Amino acid sequence: MSGMWGNKLKISIFGESHGNAIGITIDGLPTGFEINMENILEEMSRRAPGKSKLSTARKESDKPEILSGFFEGKTTGTPLCAIIRNSDMHSKDYGKLKSVMRPGHADYSGNIRYNGFNDYRGGGHFSGRITAPLVFAGSICKQILESKDIYVTSHVKRIGKVEDKDFSEVKLNKDIISELRNEELPLLIKDNEEKMRNEILEAKKDGDSVGGIIECGIIGIQAGIGDPFFDSVESTLAHLLFSVPAVKGVEFGKGFEMASLRGSECNDEYYYDREEVKTYTNNNGGILGGITNGMPILFKTVIKPTPSIAKEQKSINISEKKDESLKIEGRHDPCIVQRAVPVIESVAAIGLLDLIL
Amino acid sequence: MSGMWGNKLKISIFGESHGNAIGITIDGLPTGFEINMENILEEMSRRAPGKSKLSTARKESDKPEILSGFFEGKTTGTPLCAIIRNSDMHSKDYGKLKSVMRPGHADYSGNIRYNGFNDYRGGGHFSGRITAPLVFAGSICKQILESKDIYVTSHVKRIGKVEDKDFSEVKLNKDIISELRNEELPLLIKDNEEKMRNEILEAKKDGDSVGGIIECGIIGIQAGIGDPFFDSVESTLAHLLFSVPAVKGVEFGKGFEMASLRGSECNDEYYYDREEVKTYTNNNGGILGGITNGMPILFKTVIKPTPSIAKEQKSINISEKKDESLKIEGRHDPCIVQRAVPVIESVAAIGLLDLIL
Amino acid sequence: MSGMWGNKLKISIFGESHGNAIGITIDGLPTGFEINMENILEEMSRRAPGKSKLSTARKESDKPEILSGFFEGKTTGTPLCAIIRNSDMHSKDYGKLKSVMRPGHADYSGNIRYNGFNDYRGGGHFSGRITAPLVFAGSICKQILESKDIYVTSHVKRIGKVEDKDFSEVKLNKDIISELRNEELPLLIKDNEEKMRNEILEAKKDGDSVGGIIECGIIGIQAGIGDPFFDSVESTLAHLLFSVPAVKGVEFGKGFEMASLRGSECNDEYYYDREEVKTYTNNNGGILGGITNGMPILFKTVIKPTPSIAKEQKSINISEKKDESLKIEGRHDPCIVQRAVPVIESVAAIGLLDLIL
Amino acid sequence: MSGMWGNKLKISIFGESHGNAIGITIDGLPTGFEINMENILEEMSRRAPGKSKLSTARKESDKPEILSGFFEGKTTGTPLCAIIRNSDMHSKDYGKLKSVMRPGHADYSGNIRYNGFNDYRGGGHFSGRITAPLVFAGSICKQILESKDIYVTSHVKRIGKVEDKDFSEVKLNKDIISELRNEELPLLIKDNEEKMRNEILEAKKDGDSVGGIIECGIIGIQAGIGDPFFDSVESTLAHLLFSVPAVKGVEFGKGFEMASLRGSECNDEYYYDREEVKTYTNNNGGILGGITNGMPILFKTVIKPTPSIAKEQKSINISEKKDESLKIEGRHDPCIVQRAVPVIESVAAIGLLDLIL
Repeated sequence: MSGMWGNKLKISIFGESHGNAIGITIDGLPTGFEINMENILEEMSRRAPGKSKLSTARKESDKPEILSGFFEGKTTGTPLCAIIRNSDMHSKDYGKLKSVMRPGHADYSGNIRYNGFNDYRGGGHFSGRITAPLVFAGSICKQILESKDIYVTSHVKRIGKVEDKDFSEVKLNKDIISELRNEELPLLIKDNEEKMRNEILEAKKDGDSVGGIIECGIIGIQAGIGDPFFDSVESTLAHLLFSVPAVKGVEFGKGFEMASLRGSECNDEYYYDREEVKTYTNNNGGILGGITNGMPILFKTVIKPTPSIAKEQKSINISEKKDESLKIEGRHDPCIVQRAVPVIESVAAIGLLDLIL
Repeated sequence: MSGMWGNKLKISIFGESHGNAIGITIDGLPTGFEINMENILEEMSRRAPGKSKLSTARKESDKPEILSGFFEGKTTGTPLCAIIRNSDMHSKDYGKLKSVMRPGHADYSGNIRYNGFNDYRGGGHFSGRITAPLVFAGSICKQILESKDIYVTSHVKRIGKVEDKDFSEVKLNKDIISELRNEELPLLIKDNEEKMRNEILEAKKDGDSVGGIIECGIIGIQAGIGDPFFDSVESTLAHLLFSVPAVKGVEFGKGFEMASLRGSECNDEYYYDREEVKTYTNNNGGILGGITNGMPILFKTVIKPTPSIAKEQKSINISEKKDESLKIEGRHDPCIVQRAVPVIESVAAIGLLDLIL
Repeated sequence: MSGMWGNKLKISIFGESHGNAIGITIDGLPTGFEINMENILEEMSRRAPGKSKLSTARKESDKPEILSGFFEGKTTGTPLCAIIRNSDMHSKDYGKLKSVMRPGHADYSGNIRYNGFNDYRGGGHFSGRITAPLVFAGSICKQILESKDIYVTSHVKRIGKVEDKDFSEVKLNKDIISELRNEELPLLIKDNEEKMRNEILEAKKDGDSVGGIIECGIIGIQAGIGDPFFDSVESTLAHLLFSVPAVKGVEFGKGFEMASLRGSECNDEYYYDREEVKTYTNNNGGILGGITNGMPILFKTVIKPTPSIAKEQKSINISEKKDESLKIEGRHDPCIVQRAVPVIESVAAIGLLDLIL
Repeated sequence: MSGMWGNKLKISIFGESHGNAIGITIDGLPTGFEINMENILEEMSRRAPGKSKLSTARKESDKPEILSGFFEGKTTGTPLCAIIRNSDMHSKDYGKLKSVMRPGHADYSGNIRYNGFNDYRGGGHFSGRITAPLVFAGSICKQILESKDIYVTSHVKRIGKVEDKDFSEVKLNKDIISELRNEELPLLIKDNEEKMRNEILEAKKDGDSVGGIIECGIIGIQAGIGDPFFDSVESTLAHLLFSVPAVKGVEFGKGFEMASLRGSECNDEYYYDREEVKTYTNNNGGILGGITNGMPILFKTVIKPTPSIAKEQKSINISEKKDESLKIEGRHDPCIVQRAVPVIESVAAIGLLDLIL
């Protein structure tokens, strides 16, 4: 099993890249919430391919149809299901992939898991396309969070060799958040944009791809959210983040850097800002003992380089049980970090809403 | 809620540092499995404090009593509960901590979460001591995994400035695993041991603490385990790993390093080793699309420096609602990385067994 | 929340009577199972209205479209979602029902639960129509069970004053099962059919409705399925059965009759039938301690009379906060017992498959 | 698996009749609730055997020890675990039962389920004794519900041939509830007491046992609690009720009687009692569409006759694979209905609290 998650807010995801439709059911939404459909489409378009040279030319209409749980412009509180029809499918491109396993993709592990019965076309259920319904659901969750003055944002921390600042180095507020929202490559150091673009385009030119890091920040979240152990904020968010294809690492606050630091450099000292409790630093990313302390939640997620590359790669043919090299044809993303940004924000919003409902 | 987790194997954890007892219930164990109690005690003693200068002098007997689910030396298959009585508690040490919040600990976030009703003595339910039952459960899971020829091991990848090799640089096998098992600081480069010890003792001398990274490797796991999305191996393991106090980051395979790499450097190319499918490299840590590919599972976990340090720190007094600096008295661990090793292995074993049952 | 259920097999249901579509996602199906679509349509047509004078004239096409998890005629093992478009909707009929609460329906309880934001047309998410996706899912589960030689069947035990025999009075086998399958009113005493038909038609003539009891039998199930306490076969099946609208009681084996009996009359004595363990009687309905004993599983479910009746009823107008009597117009079922038969079998099949996977 | 249940309030039960201890962990309790320990002991003593001639002479101290989640007399909000040590165990009595299966008990189904590794002594994990922790947890839940003016009560509706009134025939209020609380056989018709006692004692004299029905009523519950489908109040309560050993049927409101009634006799007509919505009757037991309507929740549970009887019974010896008759020695309950009353109330309170938290 794989497609259902949640406690107070539950989601159920389904679909394959080249099947009839992909979609998601969201259960446990508050009743009577007025959904801003335009905003959903904007968010989904941030994820959609075909917008610039940075991503694949495949066009996905990504137009969701709400089937249930939505009445007179508002959530009813009963399960809300939305589907997105698949189109612009070049199924022929994928014939060979039934037998020859693409390195870095789930072709082989998926084939074993499903005894060869999975829909292999375009990666099937493993396709990044299945994150579109996550963005649909996440957009609604973000809207609900924003109605409670909680904002989820992110920037591209790194692509290849180019690195952006950390959120902890700026005063994260609504102004910064609205600036970041409209960018294909949301950045704290604007001068990085061209450099990052070049990293991607160089990889593309080489028939290769490049990875990156997304940093996410959540402001407006009160202290006391989450639980120790298995419902910790970190466990909840990491669970969802690692569900996103291509995510290979998650860290909160200073994360892996803490291995080289002393306790005195990692502890966040407290003070009273009038009535409000704050910390001078936010090395722990707003979470202590699995529970929010009222400071912004900060975490970073690494997105691996797109496995689909134009270079010839060594591989195997599982039908003929022999080695066979492979050159992947067709349209590919030289980098998916920028397309993953709304996906990461979406699962963070879904996880957070589940925790605070 | 916080204390229950699992699908096919479920655990329920309970206890506070200074309460009557801590413990765990394990539900869904196979029937008729002969438990090696001596091995459990060994594993628990790896986690226990008081063994060397590297950890606190607090003595914890850590002697588990099995209450149920165990009959004539074997698991019955019904819920197995074990408890560990608390002792050697210096409750007086903690009087002040009711009001003055220790930076880096869950004192403040926990106080808000539980409206001030949580047992604050020794960190209460947030205490690292509550990981002892996890090691109890994890030891049983490791024994069951070993009966299926699956082995969970780890080494200290980094403490402070001292770094060990990666598992991907050696041929991970049972010989290496048995060597690592008996070490307080399990290392691939033995010469690192004294350097790491010095890192810790220097931090101790300074009234400070130091963090580190644990790398975990799992061999013998077949391909096809796990699911895409919400029951991915990465989601399952990360969920549990982030439940462990002090864990602030988790990465699989090359993890965050992938941000600076190309697709051609991250993809693991396949070949047939006789009948068996293998990859030349293991950059993805044995997991693709959330599912095992038959190569060893490799992941790294960062452990933050112990927040309890002897240095004076700025903080707040929440009873009097004012700033108040704090100097933590008593016995502390200058480093908990070495004690966290069996905990990390334990939750990995619990997560893995849940996936393969 | 409401729409998701399951452990090893999970379902997620959605839809409203007059929304765009209703549907279900099934997660955890075995891979490579060849689905018999014709059989699904037959089963769904058993539930569909408009077939005889015994049920409402509302026509529902009930044609499911599979969106995912299905490839080249077989299950892939990834989530299988199917939707059924709504049609033949007389939404105008329901205008008044926004304010005046139909007795026996969920109009009032649902209005309070969803703060008035639920889709009230045709009962919305509470409509019996939402059981169509359950029959879709249940049909697949029944097919899978039958491939393992497990058969789920049922007969109408009672409608109004007319009572059929018990399954325990006949030797339940595949012959009886195939006879029962094709009947609108499946009965062990065929002479009952006209009497039951008359009970229903008399109620219809009076502008009233009538209830009944369905007895379900499952053969071929091995001993040792289920668990004590919260995953007992009885808990699992009862949970699902009480999810079906109109079910107000569930009993296993002799059920409520046991209150008047002695232990010696309820215990099922064992014997060896060659190598096989059997009991002389089956008063406990094949379940002891929550676990199957190898005898047929037998349970009865009471279906309340359709709440929609033509008679004038006292009620309230919640918009105007005053008493207001109500006469429900439109097409109604004088009895839904016969239409509930495939629904009861379906949830039993879903529950059972979850337990044995 | 078997021992864990819940959504917002979770319980984890463990133990065997003749093991070291039995117990329960409750996760998700509100923080700072002051527990009345005396009341818990009273409730547990209602369930305990040895009080009168109506039940077995086995003495169980049933003294719970709280291990965690409880600090300075109040719940902390972290998991609360309590254990009860086993004592007065006559393990020798059970030697024979390893091989000869007691009819009506879980000996055989449990043996198959656990491959013969379950603790068979005294029924092991299947023993009615394991309901003691449920009463412990249920008592706390009842206290919390009472703090919100919600009361759970019950009476013995039937034992053998003697029948009590229905709750729907009286005006259920706090006065009746406090009267019922102190009775070994809580009854609405007090004259029934001696008759019921005689039913039990006659069965005892015959070396037999007798079953009965418990009706449970819950007042003070607001409208709008529960959900359609899988989190319906009926599904939630039935799931827990069928977890209790010996329960073979559950019905809400008029339940099975509805099969013989018309819609006009089952629908509950509404009226305004000043501002408050009420129904003239309560045939649906306070639940419509799975959701409370504000009227008392009413349900009945049938308890089968104790399977342990002194009469000789036909059975099998599974070690020798042959038929072998059996005469159960030792102390037995001629009726467990009266002891089951606090258990039924407890699981109802647990289920209800989970729904309203």
